Amino acid sequence: MAKGAPQAVLSGKRETIRRVMQAARQEFAAAGIAASRIDSIAQTAGVTKQLVYHYFESKEKLFAAVLAESSASIMSELLSLDVEHLAPPEALRAFLNHIFDQYQFDPDLRSLAQEGMRYHEAHPVPGDKFSDLAPSLVECLKKILDRGIDSGDFKPDVNVRIFVAIAALIMCGGFTHRFSMSVLAGFDTTSPEGMAAWREHSADFVLAAISSNRTNA
Amino acid sequence: MAKGAPQAVLSGKRETIRRVMQAARQEFAAAGIAASRIDSIAQTAGVTKQLVYHYFESKEKLFAAVLAESSASIMSELLSLDVEHLAPPEALRAFLNHIFDQYQFDPDLRSLAQEGMRYHEAHPVPGDKFSDLAPSLVECLKKILDRGIDSGDFKPDVNVRIFVAIAALIMCGGFTHRFSMSVLAGFDTTSPEGMAAWREHSADFVLAAISSNRTNA
Repeated sequence: MAKGAPQAVLSGKRETIRRVMQAARQEFAAAGIAASRIDSIAQTAGVTKQLVYHYFESKEKLFAAVLAESSASIMSELLSLDVEHLAPPEALRAFLNHIFDQYQFDPDLRSLAQEGMRYHEAHPVPGDKFSDLAPSLVECLKKILDRGIDSGDFKPDVNVRIFVAIAALIMCGGFTHRFSMSVLAGFDTTSPEGMAAWREHSADFVLAAISSNRTNA
Repeated sequence: MAKGAPQAVLSGKRETIRRVMQAARQEFAAAGIAASRIDSIAQTAGVTKQLVYHYFESKEKLFAAVLAESSASIMSELLSLDVEHLAPPEALRAFLNHIFDQYQFDPDLRSLAQEGMRYHEAHPVPGDKFSDLAPSLVECLKKILDRGIDSGDFKPDVNVRIFVAIAALIMCGGFTHRFSMSVLAGFDTTSPEGMAAWREHSADFVLAAISSNRTNA
């Protein structure tokens, strides 16, 4: 942002970018990257197509920006969770439930994640917030696991990073792998009842995998 | 297929369809549905674009056919596994490893699965083999779990269908969620070393979740 620009101009630009990102998020989630049109995003945001290109250069870079914003918001929410007052199994469950609820309460997140999985195969995402914040997330969960090892609730011999990866995968899998999970589980994992069942069973599964033999957390 | 057609015509048609499906599978895996072109698939298969449309009607239906063929082949391979002579924990691990190896030994499967996840959100897949064969797969795994409950290796209070869903998710997650799993785990889950690590840890995770307290399978 240009130094010394008048405040009204700055906030006008910020507001425009916010509106474009919001319109883009909706369009990418509904139609996917390939079928999304800058024209239509610009129209929803109430700006010209030229202005969208001016700020974001291309549809792919606009998608990368939307993905980066989503990752940043998801990760900072998780990092700000206060679970230190809870016993380790409850703290871990609260963390897992929060991952699930981010998908449950943001219906666009499923599509964006699915698009993102394909997108990341072919494109580096500059300033990727997920990679930037992943070490802090692992650290957060390591604290819970360490407390649980000390308390005797959790097994001591766990590879923390792989554990965090698999735990996150399980919590979001009913959304990202909706079709195959619904077929195998026997219910729509994104229906209200299906989400309630997946939320509980998936957290149970993660806790069962890490619980020491002496407990049934 | 027309009744009474000469054998040479029949096998010529079959061979053409096989070549088109093979070319389509490669193109869809490499470029995704949106960027794939019937023109280019026809050229690779050595047939005319008109013939591809004649057999498959549209690019979307051609993708659905490729997906159905992949699902059918994956599922029948799993259903034909002979693990009855193995102790329940080893039988389950052999099953899980086989799910993993299907992705490991078929590099196109990751892309096809990712494309399929998006595709299934928007399209019913007629004659979907995954849905058709899923109950038999669940039954197969239920037999292993029941044997393991009888032997005391596995917990008795497991929801089999959700267990099968989550187990399959974990085994394929290093491929389908390659980007996020690699960031969290700290290694490329599709590199040779990364695959070896994911294969072992993910099967360990599944077994830990179901093992009774008296064992460390």
